[in-house]
Amino acid sequence: MFPERAQLLVMVLDLLGVFAFALSGALVGVRKKFDIFGVLVLAGATGLGGGIIRDLMIGAVPPAALTDWWYLLVPLLAGLITFLFHRVVDRLETWVVFFDALGLGLFCAVGTIKALGHELTLLPAVLMGVVTAAGGGIVRDLLAHRVPIVFRGELYAIPALAGAVVTGIGVQLGWGSLVPAGAGLIVAITWRLLAVRRGWSAPIALHTPSGQPDDH
Amino acid sequence: MFPERAQLLVMVLDLLGVFAFALSGALVGVRKKFDIFGVLVLAGATGLGGGIIRDLMIGAVPPAALTDWWYLLVPLLAGLITFLFHRVVDRLETWVVFFDALGLGLFCAVGTIKALGHELTLLPAVLMGVVTAAGGGIVRDLLAHRVPIVFRGELYAIPALAGAVVTGIGVQLGWGSLVPAGAGLIVAITWRLLAVRRGWSAPIALHTPSGQPDDH
Amino acid sequence: MFPERAQLLVMVLDLLGVFAFALSGALVGVRKKFDIFGVLVLAGATGLGGGIIRDLMIGAVPPAALTDWWYLLVPLLAGLITFLFHRVVDRLETWVVFFDALGLGLFCAVGTIKALGHELTLLPAVLMGVVTAAGGGIVRDLLAHRVPIVFRGELYAIPALAGAVVTGIGVQLGWGSLVPAGAGLIVAITWRLLAVRRGWSAPIALHTPSGQPDDH
Repeated sequence: MFPERAQLLVMVLDLLGVFAFALSGALVGVRKKFDIFGVLVLAGATGLGGGIIRDLMIGAVPPAALTDWWYLLVPLLAGLITFLFHRVVDRLETWVVFFDALGLGLFCAVGTIKALGHELTLLPAVLMGVVTAAGGGIVRDLLAHRVPIVFRGELYAIPALAGAVVTGIGVQLGWGSLVPAGAGLIVAITWRLLAVRRGWSAPIALHTPSGQPDDH
Repeated sequence: MFPERAQLLVMVLDLLGVFAFALSGALVGVRKKFDIFGVLVLAGATGLGGGIIRDLMIGAVPPAALTDWWYLLVPLLAGLITFLFHRVVDRLETWVVFFDALGLGLFCAVGTIKALGHELTLLPAVLMGVVTAAGGGIVRDLLAHRVPIVFRGELYAIPALAGAVVTGIGVQLGWGSLVPAGAGLIVAITWRLLAVRRGWSAPIALHTPSGQPDDH
Repeated sequence: MFPERAQLLVMVLDLLGVFAFALSGALVGVRKKFDIFGVLVLAGATGLGGGIIRDLMIGAVPPAALTDWWYLLVPLLAGLITFLFHRVVDRLETWVVFFDALGLGLFCAVGTIKALGHELTLLPAVLMGVVTAAGGGIVRDLLAHRVPIVFRGELYAIPALAGAVVTGIGVQLGWGSLVPAGAGLIVAITWRLLAVRRGWSAPIALHTPSGQPDDH
């Protein structure tokens, strides 16, 4: 997928992203007073969920998360650290947000490239990039029994979409994989971090009825 | 799966069903005040979710939704239209209910036939028909953080089951695919529209405890 | 997977486990006042959900639940019985807890062995054992719109993990499949039943903030 020299770098960055995602999942679990199993499941589901859904959908089974021990050890570690030292992790929020943005950027780029490598065309491949980047957070919120925050104005998926589009078009133009991935990653991370810093949010529809949403 | 002349007709009807399902998903998203991304995800998940689950389970990967652009463009369009003009869509409810019933009928018939074509026997194939028809709505409600309405008395899955049974038995009897699909579709749509018009609902168990359900 | 003479025994025990899981799912559905369709879906999802997720992830499609009628008939039966006679089922709770523990033990052992047979290494195979055992209950709670009880201190997944580890190590040591499965099963069931009887629960993190968890 990537030139051999770059493989290790991509994998290390990818695992950093998994680690950051897993921390965010584990923190939600601790705040919900989940037990150790719940915290570890949330760590794993958040760190690996997006990639697993992508792999199931493109037919890459067993998913990468099950064939390389690192992909199980990293979220396990993130979960245990958060379970034991959640007050410290909580205070490192700036770092978590930064690594989370790194994960977002990497996941959308890597997911798009992997999907293109499985003979998907541009539009579905971009969609798989977004699924890789945003899927883990959605699974986390489903398991934690709350509305996915990525649907509630948090500007998260749109930077991932932009990164996936840049990556996908770059690959289609024949620029290899490393340059498009780098460009997509930079677009997604920059946009995401600007959104966090400036409090940008995604638009909601105008004139929605006021009062309680229908919550039967 | 279908005779060549019928392929186009089936696909157009199928896309109409996807469109109606996607509208219903997008409307839920707007009412929940989800942002544009949330509305589009709900549109896509409702329109395509049932078929994707079916395809993953019968081993038809990548799912049809990822190999044909129309299946991504139609829910995207439905989501955007609803996001921009939800008050209009809201007022067209009668039409949405009708197209939704059309989708229900088509999805249960097409899903059953596709499963039979992947060497499933009658009972699992019928189940896959019901999953195709009712899965999208269940995914929609999970993502929107509400109890699936299809579990709460809404007479929805039972017409789909009837349609899937009729379709499956017809195919097993050697009647080809078009006649059984047509018969199953008519049974499901008719039953569904009668249920809507007359307020029929699915039975719940007798003597259930009164008061709040255990909602920890 | 198992020696031929043992196949029937394993399958009968497996179906007993599916039956118990399905009862627990159906009871939740009845208590939530779901209609007949909702009760049957909860029965099927609880009884078969863990195995289906495992099979999708290891690439064993269509999942066993779709290729052998017994795996559809047993949860259907459990769902119908519960729907009609839920007050009786409710009163048999001791038996349900026992069979549920039997299912837990069997599922973690069988799931681990099946995953090892699909060329997964020890750690992912153990994980698949836990997914087989605990996945159905998580799916049940997602569909029933409640927090997965397996995350809330209920000592359930940890016995499954122990059973999966024992099974997996036994198989890796070359002890065949029957002895490791038996050992894993006994570990998981014993631990689970002791936990129920003595009210053991899984640990939650220290110093979690008091007050309401962030439930936006």
